[in-house]
Amino acid sequence: MDHKGRVKGLQTVFDRNHLDALLVTHLPNVRYLCGFTGTSGALVVDETRSAFFTDGRYTEQARAEVQGARVVIARKSPLAAASEWLMGRALGRKTRRRLGIESEHLTVAARTQLTRMLPSGFRLGETRGLVEQARMLKDADEIVRLRAAAILGASLFDRALDVIRPGVKESEVAAEMEYVARRAGAEEMSFPTIVAAGKRSALPHGRASRAAIPLRGFVVCDFGVILAGYCSDRTRTVHVGRPTAKARAIYEAVREAQATAIKIVRAGVSVAEVDQAARSILKKRGLAKHFTHSTGHGVGLEIHEPPRIAAGQTEILRPGMVITIEPGVYITGSGGVRIEDTVVVTERGCEVLAPSSKELITI
Amino acid sequence: MDHKGRVKGLQTVFDRNHLDALLVTHLPNVRYLCGFTGTSGALVVDETRSAFFTDGRYTEQARAEVQGARVVIARKSPLAAASEWLMGRALGRKTRRRLGIESEHLTVAARTQLTRMLPSGFRLGETRGLVEQARMLKDADEIVRLRAAAILGASLFDRALDVIRPGVKESEVAAEMEYVARRAGAEEMSFPTIVAAGKRSALPHGRASRAAIPLRGFVVCDFGVILAGYCSDRTRTVHVGRPTAKARAIYEAVREAQATAIKIVRAGVSVAEVDQAARSILKKRGLAKHFTHSTGHGVGLEIHEPPRIAAGQTEILRPGMVITIEPGVYITGSGGVRIEDTVVVTERGCEVLAPSSKELITI
Repeated sequence: MDHKGRVKGLQTVFDRNHLDALLVTHLPNVRYLCGFTGTSGALVVDETRSAFFTDGRYTEQARAEVQGARVVIARKSPLAAASEWLMGRALGRKTRRRLGIESEHLTVAARTQLTRMLPSGFRLGETRGLVEQARMLKDADEIVRLRAAAILGASLFDRALDVIRPGVKESEVAAEMEYVARRAGAEEMSFPTIVAAGKRSALPHGRASRAAIPLRGFVVCDFGVILAGYCSDRTRTVHVGRPTAKARAIYEAVREAQATAIKIVRAGVSVAEVDQAARSILKKRGLAKHFTHSTGHGVGLEIHEPPRIAAGQTEILRPGMVITIEPGVYITGSGGVRIEDTVVVTERGCEVLAPSSKELITI
Repeated sequence: MDHKGRVKGLQTVFDRNHLDALLVTHLPNVRYLCGFTGTSGALVVDETRSAFFTDGRYTEQARAEVQGARVVIARKSPLAAASEWLMGRALGRKTRRRLGIESEHLTVAARTQLTRMLPSGFRLGETRGLVEQARMLKDADEIVRLRAAAILGASLFDRALDVIRPGVKESEVAAEMEYVARRAGAEEMSFPTIVAAGKRSALPHGRASRAAIPLRGFVVCDFGVILAGYCSDRTRTVHVGRPTAKARAIYEAVREAQATAIKIVRAGVSVAEVDQAARSILKKRGLAKHFTHSTGHGVGLEIHEPPRIAAGQTEILRPGMVITIEPGVYITGSGGVRIEDTVVVTERGCEVLAPSSKELITI
């Protein structure tokens, strides 16, 4: 991973944001910029250097992982150590310097603490999404990892198909899928596995429960793994028992909506257009009001990253963005369908990661 | 769960903290006070009522789960909806009212947004740990759940003993343990499972990696489940191959340190004394400098909660606190040992959850 290049890229936006330095506390951003994978640490980047601060538990790990930044093992908190380091960097400067904080991640208490400790040569400035902006565009190394995660993630569905039967608990299906993931080397699941059967399939966030799969109805499986730090995200919906004509029509509408949205993905298209493409198909089928969430989101070191693929968003797709396309229809008291793939945006279209048939599978 | 009683308890500390209302945004605190288990929502409690705000994805779930608070399904963000509700509550008041925020959880960006939206009759006040203070003392319902989680959690170690062998990957051991957990109904693991073998056992946070278990050395297994919302936390260390006299001495020192600390736990003792009890045994054995973390922490809806069982902390143990006792010794380049139980503090001592023998097991 090109950590140094990423830090340089970040430094180029300092001027535009009136920053002399940025305090990076959001751990996925820390990892992105310097490679540290632990759970306690902060990175300070100024115009010319960067320094990483962590505590004694991570001495070995920080030395092994961190690239392009000086490693400081702090006896105090990483924030206190970072403030001290900044003091050295402020010496001899005539003008007051501006330290950016990641306002969407730093807590109010941490900010208060920082304000007390910060050398007088610095004042704080609230920033939003500076590192996330860069993270939207995945480089070749990241796409390799995302593809590998997607392929492993996709294999979990084969196991789900083996075990989904009436009477089996949703949580048992999830257990089998997660076991496959772990055995294959996944670090963890990228979010709590969703297995939502029958009426529960109408819950967009139906985490696998102890409910048994009924004799008839949809089963929505939404699942992902983390492999080498990168997330996969995929949804497949199957039907247990013979589907009614209406159920089949709903499934086909969602399938068409998803395919249509994937078809228009390419560099230069706005995320709102992609959302609209999926929504318009469902509208034609009279199902738009049952599509109650946005069409997708970015995926990378985190399961939900910018951009949001939603109405009202203005982001324009660029090559290297990795996004989900996941329309769904949810009919309370009856059931729901969602179909999701993760795709890499290219100049002329997109690459669907771990593509597969999406014809309705009945069990 | 006595959600109403918890809200009443919280209201009794408003005066002391110069609050007229508290905005609860930390989700485990929201769950504790009103029962909501979803991932988006906020609760406002004032002197006489409370209202819970979430979005349309959680309409059904909020209505099913939330107790003792009015449920508001917001078209805007939960924070915007909460601000509007507060406007109604401020009407006709002559004095400006103070709304507490959870400063250790609310982000700087959310605070900025809130400041803009808040009716002029309110000003913000930073609070710390108000709900966490109450959560330290578990009630009978919570202890039942913690005991059940501990018993399920303990059973994972039996599976670990079946599979720990030289050449098996740490991640394979974790996979087997997690599979047992899921099959038995755990919602998820309470933290990434630690299986750290050989030299890696010297890493206090040695998440199961793809490294193979060597022919000889310690294997530290630190694992926990979430069952009905409550966490378990337990560590056992085994030795693969015949232990050297030194390895055996280290194990016995940690075992004695842990037993000694458990023995002094009872209401009225300070957390620092408990930490000291463990540390003094290791000091006698010349191992204190290798015990590089604190002796324990509270466990409940979250895996790490107050109190911290550490030097310099002033908290006094009270009946109903549920804490871990987990001394460890870590010798870089060689290996480490940690032994951990979760205990419920009682008037006269403590109840060890899911107690077991801690004699050294060699494999």
